[in-house]
Amino acid sequence: MVTREELNEKPEANEHNLFEAKVLDKGFVRLVDMMGDDYAAVKAARVSYGQGLKTPERDKALIFYLMEHGHETPFEHIVFTFHVKAPLFVARQWFRHRIGSFNEISQRYTEIKEEEFYIPENVRVNVPEDRQKAVPVEDEGLLEKVKDLMVKSFEESYKVYKELLSLGVARELARIVLPLSTYTQFYWTVNARSLMNFLNLRADSHAQWEIQQYAIAIARMFKEKCPWTYEAFTKYAYRGDLLEA
Amino acid sequence: MVTREELNEKPEANEHNLFEAKVLDKGFVRLVDMMGDDYAAVKAARVSYGQGLKTPERDKALIFYLMEHGHETPFEHIVFTFHVKAPLFVARQWFRHRIGSFNEISQRYTEIKEEEFYIPENVRVNVPEDRQKAVPVEDEGLLEKVKDLMVKSFEESYKVYKELLSLGVARELARIVLPLSTYTQFYWTVNARSLMNFLNLRADSHAQWEIQQYAIAIARMFKEKCPWTYEAFTKYAYRGDLLEA
Amino acid sequence: MVTREELNEKPEANEHNLFEAKVLDKGFVRLVDMMGDDYAAVKAARVSYGQGLKTPERDKALIFYLMEHGHETPFEHIVFTFHVKAPLFVARQWFRHRIGSFNEISQRYTEIKEEEFYIPENVRVNVPEDRQKAVPVEDEGLLEKVKDLMVKSFEESYKVYKELLSLGVARELARIVLPLSTYTQFYWTVNARSLMNFLNLRADSHAQWEIQQYAIAIARMFKEKCPWTYEAFTKYAYRGDLLEA
Amino acid sequence: MVTREELNEKPEANEHNLFEAKVLDKGFVRLVDMMGDDYAAVKAARVSYGQGLKTPERDKALIFYLMEHGHETPFEHIVFTFHVKAPLFVARQWFRHRIGSFNEISQRYTEIKEEEFYIPENVRVNVPEDRQKAVPVEDEGLLEKVKDLMVKSFEESYKVYKELLSLGVARELARIVLPLSTYTQFYWTVNARSLMNFLNLRADSHAQWEIQQYAIAIARMFKEKCPWTYEAFTKYAYRGDLLEA
Repeated sequence: MVTREELNEKPEANEHNLFEAKVLDKGFVRLVDMMGDDYAAVKAARVSYGQGLKTPERDKALIFYLMEHGHETPFEHIVFTFHVKAPLFVARQWFRHRIGSFNEISQRYTEIKEEEFYIPENVRVNVPEDRQKAVPVEDEGLLEKVKDLMVKSFEESYKVYKELLSLGVARELARIVLPLSTYTQFYWTVNARSLMNFLNLRADSHAQWEIQQYAIAIARMFKEKCPWTYEAFTKYAYRGDLLEA
Repeated sequence: MVTREELNEKPEANEHNLFEAKVLDKGFVRLVDMMGDDYAAVKAARVSYGQGLKTPERDKALIFYLMEHGHETPFEHIVFTFHVKAPLFVARQWFRHRIGSFNEISQRYTEIKEEEFYIPENVRVNVPEDRQKAVPVEDEGLLEKVKDLMVKSFEESYKVYKELLSLGVARELARIVLPLSTYTQFYWTVNARSLMNFLNLRADSHAQWEIQQYAIAIARMFKEKCPWTYEAFTKYAYRGDLLEA
Repeated sequence: MVTREELNEKPEANEHNLFEAKVLDKGFVRLVDMMGDDYAAVKAARVSYGQGLKTPERDKALIFYLMEHGHETPFEHIVFTFHVKAPLFVARQWFRHRIGSFNEISQRYTEIKEEEFYIPENVRVNVPEDRQKAVPVEDEGLLEKVKDLMVKSFEESYKVYKELLSLGVARELARIVLPLSTYTQFYWTVNARSLMNFLNLRADSHAQWEIQQYAIAIARMFKEKCPWTYEAFTKYAYRGDLLEA
Repeated sequence: MVTREELNEKPEANEHNLFEAKVLDKGFVRLVDMMGDDYAAVKAARVSYGQGLKTPERDKALIFYLMEHGHETPFEHIVFTFHVKAPLFVARQWFRHRIGSFNEISQRYTEIKEEEFYIPENVRVNVPEDRQKAVPVEDEGLLEKVKDLMVKSFEESYKVYKELLSLGVARELARIVLPLSTYTQFYWTVNARSLMNFLNLRADSHAQWEIQQYAIAIARMFKEKCPWTYEAFTKYAYRGDLLEA
């Protein structure tokens, strides 16, 4: 366990840390705690045979075998807790993943601080061929115009939010004027099986670009902590198109 | 099963229906389909004893016994599908209930229509004693001021949304300027056990007033379809403070 | 809903029914209730686009599209309740499927009746090449010997069970002498997504032969009730090797 | 993480360990790994307010507040992995707890060893007043008779099992003659919220005596690792009648 002091540290405190990634303009993913590793999956799988760990070569081979044949339960014994800061529209997509535990900052109990809004650094456009698709465009002029419109809109919404609060309106009601770009924070505890499912859907070009960035950050931490499982996953079970072994 | 035509009907079409409730200014809850009833719970419970239905008196008594003693699994065999239209901040609270199935309208694939924003008809204020509390106040002047601020803010945000779309910006990116008051729609399939848990948390004065209204609408439909289960629930298992037997 | 009388009927009562299948020597699968059908998945999926049903051709095409692209949530709105009678070793495999609801007959509360044991009608042997494999052999002499050994063993165990009961020993303790071949009964409520996952794992030659028979019976009922979903499933998502489109 | 060598150690190796308990005549519960502690729940809860740890007094008070008011999600961020050896009839009750991960030894892949059967050291009888109840009796003569009948029955069943194997019958088929007293082993990963639910149902006099013993062993480890949570649980949320603060 980390100490009391470390727990309260801001993620910015040591940004060289592999397990704290800045994401988007003001967001982050931080690995707070974890349990198990590649060997935990091996042990859980070998209990089926009444056996334990063998040589590293055979243990790694078992992980590849499990992944190739869709035996996913042993990976449920590897568990991660992440602290995430992300815009609301990203959090909404994230919370659709039901196998896992969430605790989120409450806008009913806390006041939103100024400038806690996501400002994009790229622009995507819809294309006529496929209405589900959003394609990035390189157009500095357009980007500046979009950012300018958004910043002004966020400032305006925030001004109304503050005005409502100053009238005595409850936070839970005042916040309904805030935009979907507002940042939120949450703890997410998830096992490796459910995490891989998250990567399948979100580390993929069909997902919205913003949640892709979070998925990639999480994939890197996963790879670092469970290198064999990650390698086997990208080889046999990954259905997305952004990650490489 | 309802017919093809009925399925496509708007809920407004027959608003005398017990199973279509208008909620808030533009929202609704509609019972789309259901499976089982009080007897389904009785049958599932009696399988434990290798028995089936008995007299209505004994069947009802069994439901009361199950509820009193916390035997909740038999109620999982009663299942409901609701079609819900609610503001995003309500949907966000709703989707935290993980035991159930959701399919939601996508703001990435569809354009938000004008005036699809929730305008409150009452105002709540925070109180110094308890920062989790929001207390309603009767103050017509304040309400008018709040509504005025909100309507203008929503119109402003919507104008920016449309401007971004007209610049060619993808829907998934343009929508991040939209407020949390924006209405969304979703299908929710949930069993009676999970529904009762929803009522425990949301048909309660600690929940936000807006989601309370949805919970009450759902409670009424539940009571109509499963009168014994509802009566036993409010008697023995309900922990909220808004529903009555 | 079926009537009160039908609910208490024995499955043997109308065995021509497509939705009551005899399985193994004394087991059965009976579809007790269901909610939704192919159209329910279509509606749930179309809510994403703010749309409803279209033509049958387009509705069917949507189901194939969803299945091909791994969009599985719309199928969660189709729900089945089955009444199953199966040997304990089959039930143990079945209950590992966590997304679903089970209510089972209790051996603590009810006395096991005579001859409620599974007697196999085929014999499988292990092979040296693959210790997970069990291969059927055609050997009438061996089969008779095996059945003879089993029947005697079951009778012997049952005699001890009855003797323990006659000594006043509690059912919960006496039953520990009973074999894994003992039949049990349970209600299983499961949505179509979880049911398809069950078929992937159990309607497959790697599953034990006995549970394969139950999976095949369930697949037939599923096909009858949701023909488009079944066809799309076997075409795009089925990973087993026993079912055909 | 424990080392490779420790992982393969038998639980017998250090039985003074608080986190390895012998249960029944041949069973055990061993805490293999865990993540989080009382502070993990505090941190997850405080994220709601955008805050972290405070003083131990206030942190402990928060845990009591959460438990008293039924706010259970913060406890999902504390996770345990147990290695359990228990008779099949106990495992069957255990696996009904769906929120958690199981990997079990397979009787299809491994041969059951001799004398791996549970022999009770007490006898319970059913009482006429309540057919769900089993009451322990002090009767040495009866106990000896019961044990004698059981031991002989288990030996007889095991003999048939071995005979079937010697005939070449596959393990998956031969094992169906084995009794419910046969020991099995499994890994169980479970969060503290689900573990407390397990204790509510199994550390209770209505549960079968044998699973009570496992629940008590687990409660002791839980108390040792999360003393505040345990104290708050027994004070506010525990519905059973066997545990004390």
